[in-house]
Amino acid sequence: MKVILSVNAGSSSVKVSVYRAEFGQDPVQLAEAQISGLTAPPAKLDYTRGDTTVSKDKEIDTKTISQKDAFDQLVETLTSDKDLPELSSRDDIGIVCHRIVHGGDHTKPRLISEKTYHSLEQLNDLAPLHNANSLGIVHACIRDLPGARNVACFDSQFHSSLPPHIRTYPIDQKIAKSNHLRKYGFHGLSYAFITRQAAQFLGKNVEDVNLIALHLGSGASACAIKGGQSWDTSMGLTPLAGLPGATRSGSVDPSLVFHYASDVGKLSPASTKDLHISRAEEILNKESGWKALTGTTNFGVIASQYSSDPKMALAFDLFVDRISAFIGSYYVSLKGQVDALVFAGGIGEKSDALRRAVVEQVGCLGFGIDESVNKKKIGGVVEDLTKEGARHRVLVCATDEQFEMARSCALDREFW
Amino acid sequence: MKVILSVNAGSSSVKVSVYRAEFGQDPVQLAEAQISGLTAPPAKLDYTRGDTTVSKDKEIDTKTISQKDAFDQLVETLTSDKDLPELSSRDDIGIVCHRIVHGGDHTKPRLISEKTYHSLEQLNDLAPLHNANSLGIVHACIRDLPGARNVACFDSQFHSSLPPHIRTYPIDQKIAKSNHLRKYGFHGLSYAFITRQAAQFLGKNVEDVNLIALHLGSGASACAIKGGQSWDTSMGLTPLAGLPGATRSGSVDPSLVFHYASDVGKLSPASTKDLHISRAEEILNKESGWKALTGTTNFGVIASQYSSDPKMALAFDLFVDRISAFIGSYYVSLKGQVDALVFAGGIGEKSDALRRAVVEQVGCLGFGIDESVNKKKIGGVVEDLTKEGARHRVLVCATDEQFEMARSCALDREFW
Repeated sequence: MKVILSVNAGSSSVKVSVYRAEFGQDPVQLAEAQISGLTAPPAKLDYTRGDTTVSKDKEIDTKTISQKDAFDQLVETLTSDKDLPELSSRDDIGIVCHRIVHGGDHTKPRLISEKTYHSLEQLNDLAPLHNANSLGIVHACIRDLPGARNVACFDSQFHSSLPPHIRTYPIDQKIAKSNHLRKYGFHGLSYAFITRQAAQFLGKNVEDVNLIALHLGSGASACAIKGGQSWDTSMGLTPLAGLPGATRSGSVDPSLVFHYASDVGKLSPASTKDLHISRAEEILNKESGWKALTGTTNFGVIASQYSSDPKMALAFDLFVDRISAFIGSYYVSLKGQVDALVFAGGIGEKSDALRRAVVEQVGCLGFGIDESVNKKKIGGVVEDLTKEGARHRVLVCATDEQFEMARSCALDREFW
Repeated sequence: MKVILSVNAGSSSVKVSVYRAEFGQDPVQLAEAQISGLTAPPAKLDYTRGDTTVSKDKEIDTKTISQKDAFDQLVETLTSDKDLPELSSRDDIGIVCHRIVHGGDHTKPRLISEKTYHSLEQLNDLAPLHNANSLGIVHACIRDLPGARNVACFDSQFHSSLPPHIRTYPIDQKIAKSNHLRKYGFHGLSYAFITRQAAQFLGKNVEDVNLIALHLGSGASACAIKGGQSWDTSMGLTPLAGLPGATRSGSVDPSLVFHYASDVGKLSPASTKDLHISRAEEILNKESGWKALTGTTNFGVIASQYSSDPKMALAFDLFVDRISAFIGSYYVSLKGQVDALVFAGGIGEKSDALRRAVVEQVGCLGFGIDESVNKKKIGGVVEDLTKEGARHRVLVCATDEQFEMARSCALDREFW
């Protein structure tokens, strides 16, 4: 038996899930702890053990804390919990798997040591806004948890199957090669989970399943899955491309940002010695999206005020339009051989209004939603929302990136 | 009777078509003259009068000439042709209509005088690479042809019907408003022509016709036409967004260019006092596209070497993929209510291989192509390529932006 920690560090939060794992078997979750609000103090702690909520929105007594500090506090919280005997000290941790957004050409999880840590730093240039959140924690774990093995799980690795004509940008190919410029795609841990779960639900082998999957959260993307592998996805070189998100513009005319402000190529004041962020990337990643359209990053608020506030209606309709466009294009790319359209992610799992609007928009392709099921709270890992008589299935999946990371570690002899 | 000149100035060519027009009637073309190769001297003159080819690839005896010089030579060629009695002197010119790529918020053609010329210059900032080609000629005509009326016809005006949730970018709306940042769309003169001709061919009123139209030339775009009006289109704030072209990347991750080279926000050496072009816009508009993938801007070469050269196959497959994606997304946006898929533009009209590949890719939507008709040279203005039994029509249209401009002037009392 090993205790596996799955660590998911975002720009404003750190989440740690604890699993008990036997080699070659699906891990079993023991507890989950999260500190959120790192960029909007006071930060808050949520901690659940099994079905027990131990802490909820508990304020953390520091002014500002880094991702690494938050991780330390989470481990402290977990190890000091008498009712979690499997993790009574830091020495009990067998494997720590870290979600790394941009994995470059990595096609599978990698064991990370002091010696190979620099290879992660090299990936930083491609997605400085996204990878940097995790690196401090990875480095601290290598140093402070000598008994644990550290594994980098990449959000891009699922998309290493993208075919050349889809992953290539029509730009100078020498520069594309030397600067590693191609479509990578993200949310891959989620899509791997969704693919396996949907295939199982549909009674198909993973390698036989074709899906159009939507991971819709504060970051949002779509993925065409062909024979269980990623065939196309909406994010690109970085997570900026494709669908808009809470603060992200998604795809816009690539010349737009040069008409938005002057000097957008210059480094943003948020840059550091190791972290080079252009003002343009900051504008499009952090100051756009439905926050810019409506003032809120909470999509639930947008959906609920659709009828009363034209700004909310615009943001909602715009999101539905962009999502439906990807469904249409992936439907064609899969030549209509689609087993199911799958909604996942915070918004995909919670917003019945969004699911209804999207499925109505793509109804001409043979999708239909059963509103009596759609409007209920989702219970299982996968639920079927398909309207009777519709040509293609509509599913919703409670995706779990943390589990996906822990599982890939539990199944790989290299990490034991 | 008035003689109307339609002027279409590109970065490397100027084309003038001459029409005889009666108010309220379709104009009749008398002659057409073009000088091409302005950026790759020696420039060459083509001149046809009716069915007679007067000059073909005639070298122009100057080293480098501007768009305005080329226009002067074209007018000289036309007025000195004894067999074109309608245009024996510059005083015979009644109306000159000028194709202006970016029309900002203009929804219809505008009469341009010395006093209102500056309003065209103000549009220059939004698309300096595209509008500047025309402005020198407009200004010269105002000065040198006092008897003629000058009309600006905008390639964006057809798209003024784009609904808010489609034309809005999810960015800061104050900056969007003050900097005029939204989807405008281009190739509108072509789409207006295509819409009217396709409706007529299908025996429908223009206001009842729904189309997915493709203008595929060295610049390429797609358009969803709903009730005879533009509902969505692939180009955006500028012609860069959407499909790739001969030297244009089309939509790429908006952060890509910052990873392509340093200082891409700086002005390119090609900039002038009045013309501000960032290095980024130059890279993505002039140094990308299938030229960057294959070395040629000639799509006929790409299609013909598909089997022998993997680079050509990659460019071809990539183009088919991106076109088909727009067809899928517009099919959904029009909720499947599509009267026809229409191919137009140099490549759309000439490449039977591209048409075949695209229609095969979107076959699951109910499109099918009759290969016996597809492989023949196109004769009429609109031809039907639909495979027997297919759910939706496939048409090809010999589009004519010059005629569209002349016609809109012939029908508008304001310009007489």
